[in-house]
Amino acid sequence: MVVPTRERILIATAELFRRQGYNGTGLKEIASEARAPFGSIYHHFPGGKEQLGGDVIRTAGAMYAMLLPAVFDGGPDLVMGVREFFRLAGQHLAESGWQDACPIATVALEVASVNERLRAATHEVFERWIEDATQLLTERGGLSPDAARARAIAMIAALEGAFVLARASRTLEPLHAAGELVASELEAAISRCE
Amino acid sequence: MVVPTRERILIATAELFRRQGYNGTGLKEIASEARAPFGSIYHHFPGGKEQLGGDVIRTAGAMYAMLLPAVFDGGPDLVMGVREFFRLAGQHLAESGWQDACPIATVALEVASVNERLRAATHEVFERWIEDATQLLTERGGLSPDAARARAIAMIAALEGAFVLARASRTLEPLHAAGELVASELEAAISRCE
Repeated sequence: MVVPTRERILIATAELFRRQGYNGTGLKEIASEARAPFGSIYHHFPGGKEQLGGDVIRTAGAMYAMLLPAVFDGGPDLVMGVREFFRLAGQHLAESGWQDACPIATVALEVASVNERLRAATHEVFERWIEDATQLLTERGGLSPDAARARAIAMIAALEGAFVLARASRTLEPLHAAGELVASELEAAISRCE
Repeated sequence: MVVPTRERILIATAELFRRQGYNGTGLKEIASEARAPFGSIYHHFPGGKEQLGGDVIRTAGAMYAMLLPAVFDGGPDLVMGVREFFRLAGQHLAESGWQDACPIATVALEVASVNERLRAATHEVFERWIEDATQLLTERGGLSPDAARARAIAMIAALEGAFVLARASRTLEPLHAAGELVASELEAAISRCE
């Protein structure tokens, strides 16, 4: 299958952001990784690196959003699903040699305070994830919308923070500890609602 | 009080890392912010930006480590202290215009997979925080060392992840949600041990 140039550029950029961040990634490197002519970047992304960065954040965000139904659709138990989600995230990170953490978090920490356009893109993606997870916790866990939203946010925070610690320690301990905390608090919250 | 050049450089660099990351920060900008001659950076940090980066991570890490006793020494209740810790962290972030998140997390996401020396420095700092928090949870919460360590890791992960989401959303909602989740799970764990 031939992947179109625009998609090759988006995929290569997401990969480079995950590994070395936004500021550490240059357009020449992107062109080389994407096996695309340098000029094609400006052809597809006339706004240059900033526009490309925003599009990468939204595209990667939409791809990651699909992981939630992939784990939970047809899955029997919400709490087990949360444990499985953290386990799979850790497994993926370890298999990539601790390189592939979350490109959105990296950009949010690096440039959110100096680039409003990219900050808005990271916020949009996180908000979408929060809404999806809130819906899951409401429908499947029977939590109130407010209780579900607070837990959705805390769950995503715990996952993102665990990625940070795992990149530093090169162990799965942070993913395991964070997943257990989220799962066990969720289990208690659900049982109070039943 | 006159702050020595070396310390001015470390403080300015930590501030710049928090706001714009490691790769986004240049030595000229550091010299300018620190009101130090450019050559003084290499005088104090012969290894250049990488050595300076490692020293900044360790210095900032040791400073943040002092926040734990500041909140908990003499504090009556462990669970209330955890809530207060997240609240203060959020307040500081908001007061800085959502700029001052954690320089160690930013560097861990940006360069941990491409710079072993800086990765080791972030790991060392996180491990110190984990050990301090483990000791607090063991001594004051009566948790077993394993249970305390897992919660210490999850707590730091939740805090770091909440910083990421708060930088993106420019609201305190992530700090509040993460703090509540950690505090309520901790409360349940402590009551099971009593």
